[in-house]
Amino acid sequence: MDKTVDVPTGALIMDALHQAKIEILQPCGGQGRCGRCAVIIEGEGARRRSTIRISAEDVAAGYALACQTVIEGDLTVTIPEQEKIERRLVTDKSARKIELPFEYDPTVHQTIRVFQLELPQPSINDSLDDLSRLRQALKEHGVIHLDASLSVLRRLGETLRQASWSPWVVIDFDAPGSETAELIEIQPDPIQPFGLAIDIGTTTVTVHLVDLVNGEVKNSASEYNGQIARGEDVISRIVFAGKEDGLQTLSALVRKTIDTLLDRLQKRTGVSPQQIYKVSVSGNTTMMHLFLGIPPENIRLTPYVPTANQPSVFRAQELDLNIYPLASVDCLPAVASYVGADITAGVLASKLSDTADLTLFIDVGTNGETVLGTNEWMVTCACSAGPAFEGAGVVDGMRATLGAIEEVWVNTHTFEPTIRVIGGKNPTGICGSGLISLLAELFVTGIIDRAGHFKLDLDTPRVRKGKYGPEYVVAWGKDTQHSNDITLKQVDVDNLMRAKAAIYAGFSVLASSVGVDLDEVQQMLVGGSFGQYINVENAIKIGLLPDLPWDRFHFLGNTSVLGSYMALLSHEARLQILAIAEKMTYVELSADNTFFDAFTAALFLPHTEINRFPSVAEIWERHSTESESGSG
Amino acid sequence: MDKTVDVPTGALIMDALHQAKIEILQPCGGQGRCGRCAVIIEGEGARRRSTIRISAEDVAAGYALACQTVIEGDLTVTIPEQEKIERRLVTDKSARKIELPFEYDPTVHQTIRVFQLELPQPSINDSLDDLSRLRQALKEHGVIHLDASLSVLRRLGETLRQASWSPWVVIDFDAPGSETAELIEIQPDPIQPFGLAIDIGTTTVTVHLVDLVNGEVKNSASEYNGQIARGEDVISRIVFAGKEDGLQTLSALVRKTIDTLLDRLQKRTGVSPQQIYKVSVSGNTTMMHLFLGIPPENIRLTPYVPTANQPSVFRAQELDLNIYPLASVDCLPAVASYVGADITAGVLASKLSDTADLTLFIDVGTNGETVLGTNEWMVTCACSAGPAFEGAGVVDGMRATLGAIEEVWVNTHTFEPTIRVIGGKNPTGICGSGLISLLAELFVTGIIDRAGHFKLDLDTPRVRKGKYGPEYVVAWGKDTQHSNDITLKQVDVDNLMRAKAAIYAGFSVLASSVGVDLDEVQQMLVGGSFGQYINVENAIKIGLLPDLPWDRFHFLGNTSVLGSYMALLSHEARLQILAIAEKMTYVELSADNTFFDAFTAALFLPHTEINRFPSVAEIWERHSTESESGSG
Repeated sequence: MDKTVDVPTGALIMDALHQAKIEILQPCGGQGRCGRCAVIIEGEGARRRSTIRISAEDVAAGYALACQTVIEGDLTVTIPEQEKIERRLVTDKSARKIELPFEYDPTVHQTIRVFQLELPQPSINDSLDDLSRLRQALKEHGVIHLDASLSVLRRLGETLRQASWSPWVVIDFDAPGSETAELIEIQPDPIQPFGLAIDIGTTTVTVHLVDLVNGEVKNSASEYNGQIARGEDVISRIVFAGKEDGLQTLSALVRKTIDTLLDRLQKRTGVSPQQIYKVSVSGNTTMMHLFLGIPPENIRLTPYVPTANQPSVFRAQELDLNIYPLASVDCLPAVASYVGADITAGVLASKLSDTADLTLFIDVGTNGETVLGTNEWMVTCACSAGPAFEGAGVVDGMRATLGAIEEVWVNTHTFEPTIRVIGGKNPTGICGSGLISLLAELFVTGIIDRAGHFKLDLDTPRVRKGKYGPEYVVAWGKDTQHSNDITLKQVDVDNLMRAKAAIYAGFSVLASSVGVDLDEVQQMLVGGSFGQYINVENAIKIGLLPDLPWDRFHFLGNTSVLGSYMALLSHEARLQILAIAEKMTYVELSADNTFFDAFTAALFLPHTEINRFPSVAEIWERHSTESESGSG
Repeated sequence: MDKTVDVPTGALIMDALHQAKIEILQPCGGQGRCGRCAVIIEGEGARRRSTIRISAEDVAAGYALACQTVIEGDLTVTIPEQEKIERRLVTDKSARKIELPFEYDPTVHQTIRVFQLELPQPSINDSLDDLSRLRQALKEHGVIHLDASLSVLRRLGETLRQASWSPWVVIDFDAPGSETAELIEIQPDPIQPFGLAIDIGTTTVTVHLVDLVNGEVKNSASEYNGQIARGEDVISRIVFAGKEDGLQTLSALVRKTIDTLLDRLQKRTGVSPQQIYKVSVSGNTTMMHLFLGIPPENIRLTPYVPTANQPSVFRAQELDLNIYPLASVDCLPAVASYVGADITAGVLASKLSDTADLTLFIDVGTNGETVLGTNEWMVTCACSAGPAFEGAGVVDGMRATLGAIEEVWVNTHTFEPTIRVIGGKNPTGICGSGLISLLAELFVTGIIDRAGHFKLDLDTPRVRKGKYGPEYVVAWGKDTQHSNDITLKQVDVDNLMRAKAAIYAGFSVLASSVGVDLDEVQQMLVGGSFGQYINVENAIKIGLLPDLPWDRFHFLGNTSVLGSYMALLSHEARLQILAIAEKMTYVELSADNTFFDAFTAALFLPHTEINRFPSVAEIWERHSTESESGSG
């Protein structure tokens, strides 16, 4: 679709595109800051006013920003395929297909199988007992040793007769193709089996409701972990668990959160929790202990020994889960007190364990767990980042749901923000990616300095002294859902600084523990429920992620729940997670001062040693220059 | 110890023995009927007045009855070792050693093992989680895959530290020497593991408390099954189970009976039910269904299909048993609706499955289950005998405990009885062996005729017309515990006749089903809780047991609980019981009229065809003759 338009000399390419009625994203409002309006130009009739968002190679290849390039002669402009912006509307989740990295075949992968059996009717010459009759029929499906749960046995006789000897059964195999299995359900009517992949995050609990026949995610849901009111990080949860009834309270709270999610899933899909026959659970070690009702106290006390990194498989009824009582609940394996099943599952989902390239994996959540390694070796550590990146612990923070500000651009001159809100309506708060974006913008526009302190002498009402110290108004009350201003306060900035510093310090320590430099990392894999929405540039700008070429970054979303989903469907994936857990070497950050020193050094934007972030140093310098020269 | 005495010619050997102050048993009071005063004589100076209780071979070997042999010259009398009379005092049970047919070695036989572990204390350089640390230590004991029960995991951390890393653990192995096991208990203090072998009879529940380290029975106890008030035989129990809450009621009643027994065992031994980590259960199929809370209704309905002949192993808490909650409860396998685990366990205990000889095995209880076969093949059937032989369903019947009349001799002339009472004091009632003995005596003394009807014209106050018809007074009120007469009524005799006829009919049908004659039976094995006290002669006299040479009879006692005890201790024994269950061919007696005809024919003393019982025919004839000639 070629279009030709005539424009006056001195017009911007953006103006020409508007004239040609070609839609192009311009989220920063034409400030030359977001880089989203990059086009490819051919011909000499163009002058780039700014190439701040374009690499030298790209400039050489003809890239130019439509909002920053003046037309001075004939020009051919090619619009590259527009970046597909994934939206995170909760209401869209049911439609979002989660890709499995393998082709699901229940006969090969699944331990929970449903069969309709055809049993010969008993007679005086064939008075085999009901259970033996069933066992006989199941031999066709490879079952040689079948145990039957007591509650099923108690209604076996009646159900077989109701079903006229053609019952539907749910069989829980020891492994796919195993000869040993357990009969966990029998019904006269067809059974559609579902599974639940759970990720219990310190801040957020995420579940996938999975069809165990076709392997597809029927629906997903997330909610803040109900324990959050009893402590924001794992340490405060452990302290709370030590109080009288504290453990029971926390256990009950996460169950309640899961109940809420199950209820939501049922409303959306019509699938009853009683149709859930298998659960796979990932989460950090403390979350797993609390979920199982195991006292977590020794996780917090030196030498930081959890009770169980590899608990057994339990039945839902043992855990008071409101799903099918005999559903198997498989808690994925952890490595250490602070590297849990969320990481082992996440490593599988991230494919770190499949690659020969030096890879850095981070699960950005309340705990910044990091893994460095290849398919041959892995080292791992954890540093408590706090829940800031999940929108908690920040005054106007919120989860990435409808009404969350997920991206912010701030005008260099006016300091006015442009925001993108999930759902497109007036905002309610700011989610993790919005906070990273906002922090980066405040930094590059000079609203905060490299130490994260607000500059109060700027000519804008957006920066003001609030009740609790300096703050930046992201949205005025007239433009918000709740009619209150949405702000980022000094205390929030401090929180975010500590979080990003902890994470970066983890990278540094891990790299130096194996004698490599962060520059050598070939792949940077970022997990975490909001990970897939992080703007890599912003994350580098604030020094959260190392300054590597952008194409080395892969934002994978919630790798913990993805790994849990894989384990739910595939016994082999489950075994791989175990192998990963056993392969990882845990680096205890509290062993010496190395981590603390690295953390302190990272409490600057982007870092005390800015030469670690050459791309940021360049932007910083240019912006300073441009600001001074008044260009934009 | 030789003694010489002079006696007048014509004196009895018994008189000479009294004169020499040599004690000899004479329970029938010198009537020549009990045979217990047999001695060996050498020399010609003796004349045997009666040899009724001595076989021709024994007579040839010099045996003579001291009470029936007249001294007419010099004679050397040798007293054979007096028969050791086993007494069944409940209070003695703790002292009675139950013999295992194999040498118990927990490492070879047992699935439940207790270890004290020595774990390395964790440190910052060894921060393995508690469970992995435990798993590591258990590798020395051959455990490669260890699951831990949730309730144990929940107190694992605390217990390990209380135990200063030297905990005691109870491990439940899949099989002895298996690499797969479950941790079911952990304690800082030494653990002494016990097991419970249970036999749930329709009428009587018997338990052995077993030390799982040395394999010895620490104590035993029996009690009427609490369900008895809801129906005396399995059919009435099944009917009751079909009523609202009937199943739950019956289930709770047998649990309560077990609780009573556990309480008694604890009082006697100090062993708490919480020290019981394993249970092995035998019992007929209906009892097993009721114990497990499985509706038994189809056992009663054609084609008589039980729900489960081979249920799984359950945990005590699933069955609401008041022992250690994670104790494994193993229900032994059944063959059919009316041939249960009591028989498969009993066959193992009886060693029928080890012999090449044609063997008949009967478990004399409420159900007369019979097995005919060898180590190569087995046929089995069941006929409802009713609880008469267990002392229930008989007005003055009782279990074989203190105060029970266990043997009776009736004087041919005076019709006065001599009784033997368990504990030696005044009687309370009559137990099974007493009833058989009494019925035989009433028959041979002519108090009842061959049809079992009382003769009312005898010159004795012992035979009288009672409130409910004719009856025989076994003990006058002045000589009883409760000051009431103890009698055997016509209705009791009818009950006993039906019971013995059902059992004998079962033998007949089974033998003819495989085309053998009962005479060909090489071994007659009699099980049943009171089996070991049955007097073979009396049992043959009433036609309960076939008329085989006495040395072919082996009275084994409660083979069901013995088999259960063997299975409790030995995994191999458990597998043998399964093999027995799978080898047995079940003969359904209701399939045609064969059984009914055989039953009707057996409703005589000893049988309609008296030629089937040649030894009884001989006694019957002699007694009649002797009675007429007035000799005694």
